[in-house]
Amino acid sequence: MILVSVDDHAIEPPDMFEGRLPAKYADRAPRLERRDDGTHAWTYGGSEYRGVGLNAVAGRPKEEYGLEPTSLDDMRPGCYDIHERIKDMNANGVLGSMCFPSMPQFCGQLFARTEDKDVAKAMVEAYNDWHVESWCGPYPGRFLPLALPMMWDPELTAAEVRRMAGLGCHALTFSENPAALGYPSLHTDHWDPVWAACCDTDTVVCMHIGSSSQLVITSVDAPMDVLISCQPVTLLQCAADLIWSPMFRKFDDLRVALSEGGIGWIPYFTERLDYVYDHHRAWTGQDFGDRLPSEVFNEHVITCFIDDPIGVENRDHLNVDNITWECDYPHSDSTWPNSPEVAHRYLQGVSDEDIDKITHLNAMRHFHYDPFVHIAREDATVAGLRAQAVGHDVRIVSKGRRTSGARATKASDLAVATSS
Amino acid sequence: MILVSVDDHAIEPPDMFEGRLPAKYADRAPRLERRDDGTHAWTYGGSEYRGVGLNAVAGRPKEEYGLEPTSLDDMRPGCYDIHERIKDMNANGVLGSMCFPSMPQFCGQLFARTEDKDVAKAMVEAYNDWHVESWCGPYPGRFLPLALPMMWDPELTAAEVRRMAGLGCHALTFSENPAALGYPSLHTDHWDPVWAACCDTDTVVCMHIGSSSQLVITSVDAPMDVLISCQPVTLLQCAADLIWSPMFRKFDDLRVALSEGGIGWIPYFTERLDYVYDHHRAWTGQDFGDRLPSEVFNEHVITCFIDDPIGVENRDHLNVDNITWECDYPHSDSTWPNSPEVAHRYLQGVSDEDIDKITHLNAMRHFHYDPFVHIAREDATVAGLRAQAVGHDVRIVSKGRRTSGARATKASDLAVATSS
Repeated sequence: MILVSVDDHAIEPPDMFEGRLPAKYADRAPRLERRDDGTHAWTYGGSEYRGVGLNAVAGRPKEEYGLEPTSLDDMRPGCYDIHERIKDMNANGVLGSMCFPSMPQFCGQLFARTEDKDVAKAMVEAYNDWHVESWCGPYPGRFLPLALPMMWDPELTAAEVRRMAGLGCHALTFSENPAALGYPSLHTDHWDPVWAACCDTDTVVCMHIGSSSQLVITSVDAPMDVLISCQPVTLLQCAADLIWSPMFRKFDDLRVALSEGGIGWIPYFTERLDYVYDHHRAWTGQDFGDRLPSEVFNEHVITCFIDDPIGVENRDHLNVDNITWECDYPHSDSTWPNSPEVAHRYLQGVSDEDIDKITHLNAMRHFHYDPFVHIAREDATVAGLRAQAVGHDVRIVSKGRRTSGARATKASDLAVATSS
Repeated sequence: MILVSVDDHAIEPPDMFEGRLPAKYADRAPRLERRDDGTHAWTYGGSEYRGVGLNAVAGRPKEEYGLEPTSLDDMRPGCYDIHERIKDMNANGVLGSMCFPSMPQFCGQLFARTEDKDVAKAMVEAYNDWHVESWCGPYPGRFLPLALPMMWDPELTAAEVRRMAGLGCHALTFSENPAALGYPSLHTDHWDPVWAACCDTDTVVCMHIGSSSQLVITSVDAPMDVLISCQPVTLLQCAADLIWSPMFRKFDDLRVALSEGGIGWIPYFTERLDYVYDHHRAWTGQDFGDRLPSEVFNEHVITCFIDDPIGVENRDHLNVDNITWECDYPHSDSTWPNSPEVAHRYLQGVSDEDIDKITHLNAMRHFHYDPFVHIAREDATVAGLRAQAVGHDVRIVSKGRRTSGARATKASDLAVATSS
């Protein structure tokens, strides 16, 4: 088995901007600072951002999940150190990894809020350069690079997509719902330059859960379990926007990945799309020509899952050529360091051909990722990678809790903690 | 085949309050009035409510769906006339029907907003009396009665549940998310008197889509298709509230129906519940003893669908003893008047035992509904009922459009149209 994950997370190291910004902006870079209570926070544009690792709890006991971690010391070094990351990947038998940003938020909301847009642009470029050179660069064949957009300007984003494609990057992280961030919605032609650039460069638009900065808060007293249960399937609304927007009908080659959306609900959803089309197109005016919305969905949308046996069982109701696998290291939903064993359970009875598509071939094709240029196939398998990680410690280690406030059990606590 | 629908809709006739209110409140009853433009509107408490039939478009061409109808004249008489309703049910081969309210909104929000709570209480009681006596009464064995709650007061609601159970009613329409209506959430013990009354009287709590007065509006320019595609699965959030709230663990016999929620997403959802429980219980503190959340869900939650082949195919991943069928007459998502033919398609290959459970036995058991006391079994089948409807006209008839504003194609138009 060969495992390629299209959803992991980089925790940015403190030195990431060093030497990457024009001199005039160097002192405006985000800075990781130690607070009096021992926690870390990024400071940027006069504000302090405390979610240094979002949810980077890999390797810690489940009792310590929550609003942890609060400092780099509380994380496995594999969260932010690329050499340690490779060891953690090897220990989990994962060959390739696409890493979403943490500090700038999923589609670079942090930089997009910067008033001086020249600064914002410099930050995104510096981030993307760091990502390609320092994060993905040292270990060729191990990473699928992912570019940050410049959400405030579609033309700039389009240019950045082209620049990044020139550096071998064929994925763009974007918002599941730009309207929720105050930008024009997916139903406008505002984003057409971005979609055109993605088509021209064979770049996949990745829409990760949380990339609209919205959380599922059903009530202020809803326990955190409600949010965790519901958050992946929030991408169902994004998927509905995508399909009823003109974008797929206008851009034949456009592909969107529903990152961390899960797949078990997709067969229900595509069936519902066709039902809605049949019952309502006469008055809503939707027109897919001689095709069905489910067909358009299955052609354009790349589906992504961590651990979703029902989805795998129903794979014939999805496009099995577009199903991709996720590890989600180092977040709490991750299957690390037992991903192969977990996958083995839900892949029972699946044909070798489908297993290969789901675990790595689809990801390789969609993201222009060819690890075998750099790595011999026998070294790329779960067994081959784990052989390289002998002795690497993946035991669960307690870090304790630094602040009492870090234990949040209501969904609304998380909203408060991540809003500043 | 015998069809019992647990989700249809009554359109209230203008005379429904006649003789049902204490004399001092008689002139405060909602009144159906004809506006200058020919449309109908209910007036109540000094406000005008224009959604006279919500979405009662049965029998009209699909081109005329939308914010129609705008008057009783635009509807089939079966929407509001009980004798005509029976004919429409017969023509569709439907034996039994549970009808949700239209004018008062799904859980009686209209009455609950009344400042004078004595008036509000009188209105709910009058509505429930009308529902049992005038709507369900004339045709014994054809309806599963459904009570409106008094959302502003759990004790009053509990008393009403008990009163209605005495009249043979074992279903209560409730809000999928009371917190969204300004009441305490499902995570509090505020509603315990209601749950206790429902357990004592073997009454099912029905949570219909839309009963939180919230619509899926992803952006102001999102086309209506987005809302229609997403609205059923909004009950996934309700389901998450239900399972992580203490209510099922506190009230062993409590049952909740997810009305018009669909079933195709349920296997994904229950799998996700167990995943969240496994990954997060150590820090969120959830405790289901020796059970899994999926087991508790499958025991307590009654699932409901209109046309959901994927859900039927995956029925072994649901509790097949709790799956129920819906016709949704006279709304635009309904399969009327071809429900048996539509059902025939997705029931291919399903055992007779499962078909019987899904089409009528589960509904009969859960709602204390025994039509065969009143109706011979051979007259209750699709064929038997249709034989009684020979000559009843179910052809599609155009009614035109009364107002240009009635054609809304954006989800946000619907929000505006239904908000007053």
